[in-house]
Amino acid sequence: MYVAVMGYGTVGSGVVEVLNKNHESIVKRSTQDSLELKYILDLRDFPGDPNADKFIKDFNVILHDDDVKIVVETMGGLHPAFEFVSSLLAAGKSVVTSNKELVAAKGYELLSLAKAHNVNFLFEASVGGGIPIIRPITQCLAANEIDEIAGILNGTTNFILTMMIEKHMRFEDALRLAQDNGYAEKDPTADIAGQDACRKICILASLCFGKHVYPDAVYTEGITKIAARDVQYVQDLGGVIKLLGRAKRLENGQITAMVSPAVVMNGSQLASVRDVFNAILVRGDAIGDVVFYGKGAGKLPTASAVVADVIDCAKHVNRRKVFGWGPSAENYVADYKQQETALYIRVQVEDRNAALAAIEAQFGKVKLLSCEGAPDTELAFVTGKDTEQALLERLSAVNGSKAQSIIRVTDY
Amino acid sequence: MYVAVMGYGTVGSGVVEVLNKNHESIVKRSTQDSLELKYILDLRDFPGDPNADKFIKDFNVILHDDDVKIVVETMGGLHPAFEFVSSLLAAGKSVVTSNKELVAAKGYELLSLAKAHNVNFLFEASVGGGIPIIRPITQCLAANEIDEIAGILNGTTNFILTMMIEKHMRFEDALRLAQDNGYAEKDPTADIAGQDACRKICILASLCFGKHVYPDAVYTEGITKIAARDVQYVQDLGGVIKLLGRAKRLENGQITAMVSPAVVMNGSQLASVRDVFNAILVRGDAIGDVVFYGKGAGKLPTASAVVADVIDCAKHVNRRKVFGWGPSAENYVADYKQQETALYIRVQVEDRNAALAAIEAQFGKVKLLSCEGAPDTELAFVTGKDTEQALLERLSAVNGSKAQSIIRVTDY
Repeated sequence: MYVAVMGYGTVGSGVVEVLNKNHESIVKRSTQDSLELKYILDLRDFPGDPNADKFIKDFNVILHDDDVKIVVETMGGLHPAFEFVSSLLAAGKSVVTSNKELVAAKGYELLSLAKAHNVNFLFEASVGGGIPIIRPITQCLAANEIDEIAGILNGTTNFILTMMIEKHMRFEDALRLAQDNGYAEKDPTADIAGQDACRKICILASLCFGKHVYPDAVYTEGITKIAARDVQYVQDLGGVIKLLGRAKRLENGQITAMVSPAVVMNGSQLASVRDVFNAILVRGDAIGDVVFYGKGAGKLPTASAVVADVIDCAKHVNRRKVFGWGPSAENYVADYKQQETALYIRVQVEDRNAALAAIEAQFGKVKLLSCEGAPDTELAFVTGKDTEQALLERLSAVNGSKAQSIIRVTDY
Repeated sequence: MYVAVMGYGTVGSGVVEVLNKNHESIVKRSTQDSLELKYILDLRDFPGDPNADKFIKDFNVILHDDDVKIVVETMGGLHPAFEFVSSLLAAGKSVVTSNKELVAAKGYELLSLAKAHNVNFLFEASVGGGIPIIRPITQCLAANEIDEIAGILNGTTNFILTMMIEKHMRFEDALRLAQDNGYAEKDPTADIAGQDACRKICILASLCFGKHVYPDAVYTEGITKIAARDVQYVQDLGGVIKLLGRAKRLENGQITAMVSPAVVMNGSQLASVRDVFNAILVRGDAIGDVVFYGKGAGKLPTASAVVADVIDCAKHVNRRKVFGWGPSAENYVADYKQQETALYIRVQVEDRNAALAAIEAQFGKVKLLSCEGAPDTELAFVTGKDTEQALLERLSAVNGSKAQSIIRVTDY
């Protein structure tokens, strides 16, 4: 059986490396007599590469080669990845991708196409890099109704927040360090604005709750506005600030889904996730909380997830795995402002005592948080639980104060 | 398709509960038209139980009913579980078990029998309760060579150690609290002496490295000798004491496997696993470290893992999953005393300064650990790395000291 790889960047070249290095055990586990790499599609040249004889530049060679049964898409981006993958599935080839943008935007369409042509469309590597998460959710947790899912889904932002927490760095300095270390792109927007995490929570929510969740339906807030003092106030509360993607099933059939900075209390398994690591918490009705932890990115971890999918495709050739989700529905994602939460709030005030009295008139007795070196004209506190909208309305009724920072407090 | 459950104890009744409660989604995920419980085998009576019409006392009813394709074994113990499961597999029925004793002692035999009769023998629930671990290892990590595995595999001992660490309780008091909370049996030997963890690391090592590892080949040490002061000295070192089951692939084709108390440094994902929770770390060549965390026991978590296997059997009826391991080999498990490690050592001494000089003559400069209220006649320190045998020989050459406690220091 033959495999092709489209896109010889970091992940694609890692896939080729893993396929070569662990070739013998991979063939054995694939239950096929052979599993050989036939083509690598890339428009660039790679002089001196040991796989030089496999490079091609014309997609149609792969599309029309009947010996190629499995194609790996590691090109990234929506176009032409979407057109290529659609054509391949329609031609009866299974496709494995690490492309979260593609799955988040076109997952339902591509899964339907795979079903119609009795082939597989798998994407374990699209969430959590090498952490096994898509397959455990579909298979191991098959006996559970999943109620909720929450994760540290982006390693770049988790590295930045770790530096802010442990080294008391400012956001800008931590971002620069992340760039110097190669953890953040020159243009880091997709990471720090939360778009990358948003794509991943869309994929997880679609899988857990059965209907496609599109990124534009998910409220997304990045970490760019978090101040060093917020980090310290939250430390005083006994927690840490993490960028979480989360989704929850509501009783009325809707779900909530959001990406935002969130307070995670120490003692939670999500609180101790440092550096570029990812972790995903799944809350099931029978199983309780389960957490999956590991490297969320990187050449070899991600490649190993891709290759595991390739092996799975080889094992299931000509018989499709039952896997996927249905179309989206109108108003499927509920208004997050109507959901209950507690909030961490930092405000700038004129008269400290008067402001505190006004705050407690709205929120009841609050615990003030402290932070070394904070000005007298600043108050930070945590509210009780109510709908976000009600809490914000109460905050706006506090005279003589100006909100500087509002972060949701979680109970994971 | 029909299912039978053998053993209506905690896990068995949980399986029946989950099968009933999530019936609709389970049938859908099983890809069968139906998936119905037909029999519950138990010698006891359960008057008033809602499943009263399903109870039977004769195993042969299940064995000879051709409609029953999947049997759940949640009886526990080796006999008659082994004879029952053997007969069922030979009769062409798939079997799902949560019985770690059975899998650790007879896994290879039963897997071979399943293979010979083209049925499945699955046991996700035998390790880590509800935590998905067996399936992620076999499937998601298929692209990795697994180098090492280490886990907190027993919730009872982890609860006891948590109480010793956080509440400074003595072992005896923490054990009594565990018993009062229902976390430990009246006869807690299998937990506190490490046998339960030993069975689980045998199953994991067999799966990761491909040859059956029997419990009697695995050095096993429990937590009964850990003193409250050991816990405090290790805290001074910046770590915690955990009962770890671990196994590692050696370059010569052998493996190491052991259960023992071990020092885990703070910052490790294993260090923050509290209470009755379990966590399993898998170290792969491509993926790096991945950690799976959740409830390692309990009725519904364990039942949900069993039911996930039942669903998998239903999906794979008449076509066997590629899964399992080969027979053991002579001298497969290497002598642990020849492996490199660092040791935490606590000794009773007569003359403190003379003893310290003697210790440093053997081990070089050591960092003495401190513990409030410790007597002057006690020293605790950590050695550098060497084979365990060499370190113990050096220790025995320290005149005027008597070893009170020796605990291996890990780098997970």
